[in-house]
This record gives sequence, C-alpha cells and structure tokens, in this order.
Amino acid sequence: MNKKTFQNRIERCTSIMKAEGYNILLLIKPSNMYYLTGDGRLCAYAMVTHDGKVAIGVPKTDIDDVKRSAYFDSVVGFEDEVGMIHSIAHYFEHFDIKKGTVGLEYSFLTQSMMGIVTHPHAKPRDVLPKDCTHIMSGLRVVKENQEIDRLRQSALVADIGIKAAIEAVKPGTSESRIAAEAEYAMRYAGAEGFWRTYVSSGSRTGIAHGLPTNRKLESGDLVMIDVHPVVDGYSSDVCRTVCVGKPSIEQQSAYDVYLKAQQATVAKARAGVGMVELGETMHGIMKNEGHGEHIFGPPIHGIGIDFEESPLPPGHAFFHGEKEPPPLPANVVIAIGNCGLYSESWGVRVEDTVVVGDEGPIILTTYPYFLNLT
Amino acid sequence: MNKKTFQNRIERCTSIMKAEGYNILLLIKPSNMYYLTGDGRLCAYAMVTHDGKVAIGVPKTDIDDVKRSAYFDSVVGFEDEVGMIHSIAHYFEHFDIKKGTVGLEYSFLTQSMMGIVTHPHAKPRDVLPKDCTHIMSGLRVVKENQEIDRLRQSALVADIGIKAAIEAVKPGTSESRIAAEAEYAMRYAGAEGFWRTYVSSGSRTGIAHGLPTNRKLESGDLVMIDVHPVVDGYSSDVCRTVCVGKPSIEQQSAYDVYLKAQQATVAKARAGVGMVELGETMHGIMKNEGHGEHIFGPPIHGIGIDFEESPLPPGHAFFHGEKEPPPLPANVVIAIGNCGLYSESWGVRVEDTVVVGDEGPIILTTYPYFLNLT
Repeated sequence: MNKKTFQNRIERCTSIMKAEGYNILLLIKPSNMYYLTGDGRLCAYAMVTHDGKVAIGVPKTDIDDVKRSAYFDSVVGFEDEVGMIHSIAHYFEHFDIKKGTVGLEYSFLTQSMMGIVTHPHAKPRDVLPKDCTHIMSGLRVVKENQEIDRLRQSALVADIGIKAAIEAVKPGTSESRIAAEAEYAMRYAGAEGFWRTYVSSGSRTGIAHGLPTNRKLESGDLVMIDVHPVVDGYSSDVCRTVCVGKPSIEQQSAYDVYLKAQQATVAKARAGVGMVELGETMHGIMKNEGHGEHIFGPPIHGIGIDFEESPLPPGHAFFHGEKEPPPLPANVVIAIGNCGLYSESWGVRVEDTVVVGDEGPIILTTYPYFLNLT
Repeated sequence: MNKKTFQNRIERCTSIMKAEGYNILLLIKPSNMYYLTGDGRLCAYAMVTHDGKVAIGVPKTDIDDVKRSAYFDSVVGFEDEVGMIHSIAHYFEHFDIKKGTVGLEYSFLTQSMMGIVTHPHAKPRDVLPKDCTHIMSGLRVVKENQEIDRLRQSALVADIGIKAAIEAVKPGTSESRIAAEAEYAMRYAGAEGFWRTYVSSGSRTGIAHGLPTNRKLESGDLVMIDVHPVVDGYSSDVCRTVCVGKPSIEQQSAYDVYLKAQQATVAKARAGVGMVELGETMHGIMKNEGHGEHIFGPPIHGIGIDFEESPLPPGHAFFHGEKEPPPLPANVVIAIGNCGLYSESWGVRVEDTVVVGDEGPIILTTYPYFLNLT
C-alpha cells in the first residue's frame, strides 16, 4: 500500500461526508485509523476534514514511529489525557471548524470516552456529535485487491494454526495447551498477534464463546478450535471441530449436517447475494434436518482489519450499531459458519474465510474437514 | 471461593447501593460480573438489586455452563439480541423495579450498547441510568486473601513467561517470536489466556504501547517485554527490558536510573500511601537524574481480574471514568513501573506486581533485574 491508496480512501471518505453533512470525523478506533491513515494504535486519534485534511494525535513518545507508518504529515504528540483533549481542540481550531457536525464512532466509544472527546475543552460548543460508524463500515466493506492479498496471507497462517492445534489433540491435554500450539505455530508463520483464540472441549463446545480453560480433554470429547491471526494488519477466521477418539453416531451426524449447511452457504457467496439469503441457507438446511432448536449465533460476519466487522446479519448489526447491509458486491470478505449447532451436551462448528466473487466464492482458508481423527 | 464469598461481596455491594440510592445494577463488563457472581462471560449480563437479589442473562446455549460457575440460581437464556433486551425487561418486572436508578458501567458501555440496555423495551421509562463504575472499583480495589493467592499464582506464571522470552532474545528473532515463547511457556505453566503481550525492540521500545511486530532484533537493540497472564481469573503484570548484546553506556545508565526509581517506589508500597506520593517518588528520582523530559505514562495502576484497574493515578483515572483513589489500604495490589523512560531512540521499563502490605511491599513477581545478557 502506498500514499495513493490512502489518498484514494480519504477521497472516498470525504465524498460521503459531504453527501451526509459531516464537517469532520474524529476517529479513535484503531482499525478505522489504520484504514484511513496507514496507522492505527491505542491511545491515539485521527481527524479527517470534509475537504480531506488529516491530522493524527499520539502519545508524545510515538511521533517518530507513527510517521514511519502513517501517510499523513500532521502529527501532534500529547503528554497525557489533558494534553490529548487540548490537542483535539487545537486541530478543531487549526481546521477552522467552529460549527457543524463531528462524526464519532458510537459503536466503539464508551460513555467515558465520549465524555473526553466531547469535553468543552476538546470540541467547540457548536460542533454537534453524530455517529459515523456506518461511514467507516461502508468504506471498508469492499476489499481492495491488496487487502485480499493480505487476507489470503492471513488465511494461510490460520490454516497452519488449526493444523498445529489439531495435531495436539489427545486425552489429557488442556484446552489452553491446544491454544498454545495454535498460537505458537501462527506466530512462527508470520502472525503479529491474534484476536481471540477459542478452544473449547466436551460440554464447553456447547457454549457461545468457548475461550480456552485448563479443562483437560477426555476420550469422546468434541474439541472446537477457532483462530484469528493478524498478518500485516488483516485477520482471517477459521474454525474446525474434531473428536478425541471416535465420534458417536449423533456427533458425526450433527457434524455432517453442519458441514453440509456451511458448504451450501459458501457456494452461494457470489456478488449480489444478501446476508439474509446466506443466513437462511445455512439455517434452512439445519432446520430441515431437524436441528432448528440447536442453532445459535449469527451465521456470517465480515472480516478484514477487525476479526468481526461489517457486513453483519441484521439483528447483530443493530446490536453493534451497524446498518443492515445491502446485497453484497464482489470482494466483500466474510466468515461463513459462525453459528453453532448445539446439542444438549456438545456443539459443532466449521467456519471459513471466503471472498464474495463475481462468479462464485473464493475460499481463503482451506484446512480439510474431518471430525474423526482416528 | 465458595458461595459465602459471593454472598459477602453482594452484601458489601448492596450496602453501597443503598447509601448512594441505586435500586439496581445492570452489569455487562465480564470482570465485574465475575467478581459479584463467580461467572463473567461475553454477551451476558448480571442484575443485582439493592436488596441482594441476583439474576444472570446469557446466550441460551450457556445456561448449564454458567450454572456450573456462577453462585446464583436465577439464570435466563436468550435467543438473540432482541431476546436479550426482552429478558432484561423481564427481570426489571420480576424484581418489581418500575422507578429509581439503575447503575450502568459508563467506562465499559459503548454508545451502541447504552442504546441496547436503555432501550424502551429493556429499561422501564422511570428508571434512570447512572454510572456505577466507582461502586464496582470500590468493591474490587482491596483484595481478599484468596484473591491474593490467585495473583501470586499468576505472578509465578508471569515470571516463567519473562524467562522464556528473555532466553529467546538474539539477533534475527522477531518480536512476535519472542512473544510466542513467552505465551507458550505461560500457557504450559497454567495460564488460561493473556491480556496484551507487549514485545518491542530497537526504536519501538520508545513507544507507549509496544505490541509485537515482525521486526527482527538487531545487535545493540533494547527489547522490552511486558506480559499479563490470566491464571484462575486473575492477571499479574511484569515487564523487563534487556539488550541484544552489550548495552551502551547511555542505555545502562538510563536502565539504572529507572530501576532505582522503580525500586524506591516499590519500597513505599505500604498501607496509607497515596497514588500521588508513589507516582512522585517514581518520577522524582528520574527527574533528579536529568530524565524529566523522558518520562511518559501513568507510573502505577491497580491489577486484579482486569490487567489494569483501580487504583489509577488521578489523570488516568479521570480518562477511564474512575474516581481518584484515597490513600491505599493494605491488600490493594498494584503494578509499579508502568511509565517508561524514553530517550530519542529507545526506552526502558521495569514493572512488578506488588501487594500493598501493612508493614511494607509484598512483591509477587520476582524475575531478576538485568539489562546486559552477555
């Protein structure tokens, strides 16, 4: 990515800002800052004006470092929280914005952070705050080719993580140690870090968010492994479920149904498809096979700089402060298989990262599908 | 911990609620839920009434699992986001709370989440929201003996992580691979997971939040390693800085000053000391040695279920929606050495987890101090 990439993104951003009447955006969410400026870090902010001027505020220690990655020159360092507030005020003045609308990330800012960025010493009184979540999601939802290249790299690393995790599955090993193997292999394959690594086993495969514990695997357990490595700023998402020993007939049957539903949904990931249609495909097959009561969670979500981003299914989108997405254009990237099929005492899930292509799906994560390790 | 522990905590909570006029708390932050109920998970909530009734809402998949860890019986499962809203409304009705004050975590809830929990279908119109951050921090700031035992276990694991990381330091190894060694060793030693693992090197040791990248270590680099394993729900915090090869005179001198400041501050960690006094001790020594311009960041923070919690220094507390802490009682646990000494081109930091004792500090992280590996 070069300066032109970011100028282009800023241009697309400002044209939406003008159309919707935003004078300036004040961004704090690292992924949004990263997308528009080339740098996204903690305790920092970026301001983008409707005519395309960009300013970045960082801890004073970080000025040189941020200049190495961000594509814009107006960088100010602050000493502490009070300094941050004053530096925001400085840029409002510098950009001569005394009234109008400032876009803030309502789906990211806590009440306390809202208090900071709208503090009378930060924001001019007549500049009114308004949510800009949908602007940033709208910009980021269709991936550029170079973003898809990075997602492809990330998916390769995710496959390596799943392989290492599955190879470590045996009775007596803890969920946390399975996670250790996955994360170690992914860092050695090029991951800078991870979003959450989920590893659950036994009855814990039946819960919605199976973060690893020190529970030890037992023979007959299912093990659900879901990884999200960050490679060159981009995250992929792959989940596999395997059995410690030979699965029961019920486990194998549930797995087969889930995989059938997931694969049928993947097959429909082509330009023009809607999130609702994809979700109904996935849920529909599970319902037809008698598992209507066993479904939980949004079946699909977008993926990119964040491991869960727009597009989101309608209900989930509302909860996350996002808008319901229109039919998906080509080069939206989604994770398919995010809901689970949960029985009384275990669950199965299979998830892949997929590019919505003009002609059909381009599947980025390619680790094979099998429940039975024996 | 047993049921009595949690009944006790709820009693302490309700007595503050009554004194401050809260009718009910609606908690979403996992660490707060964990502290009061024994279970804290994503996408869940806990409601605590002024007369000590407790209800927990979780995804419908998680009902059995939450009953295994939470010490309260009133658990409801919801199907999706709309179901969550309705289940909150149900509990307001069940507890017969039609007016008054509901405490919400303003330092945790995003604007969008505020929209959910104060939705007219969730919260009765005449129940007014008010921040309860300080109630939860006030409850959690002094640790019980069994919490200190867990923090001690966590600190042992943190020391193991630092050891593994430092042993991997050599030219050509990437920051991410150093993190891999630390995290792998910590999971094998009993960590269920981590808060952020920081590994930075070379000029990156000079930034405020040095998350690992694929930058490769070079001879003469400083390497800053800061780990936060979660063991049995509790996090510790230890940071060490080492040099790849022989440090320069300036590097060694800066390190010596920092360590002197940190150790002098640790020595003052006894009941009755103030956060400001501790901070001034730490900063004062660095200033006296001519490094006044090189200090950045809050020098001290509390640690427990969260890797950064109350007590916080006044400015940082304000930013995080916390109140300025009074003089510290015994059994507050703090991480000392969170600010850095940052030169133009590198930084040093040394941090330990310390119990504020009646007679003096009880230092939980004990990895030795040295900059020079040769």
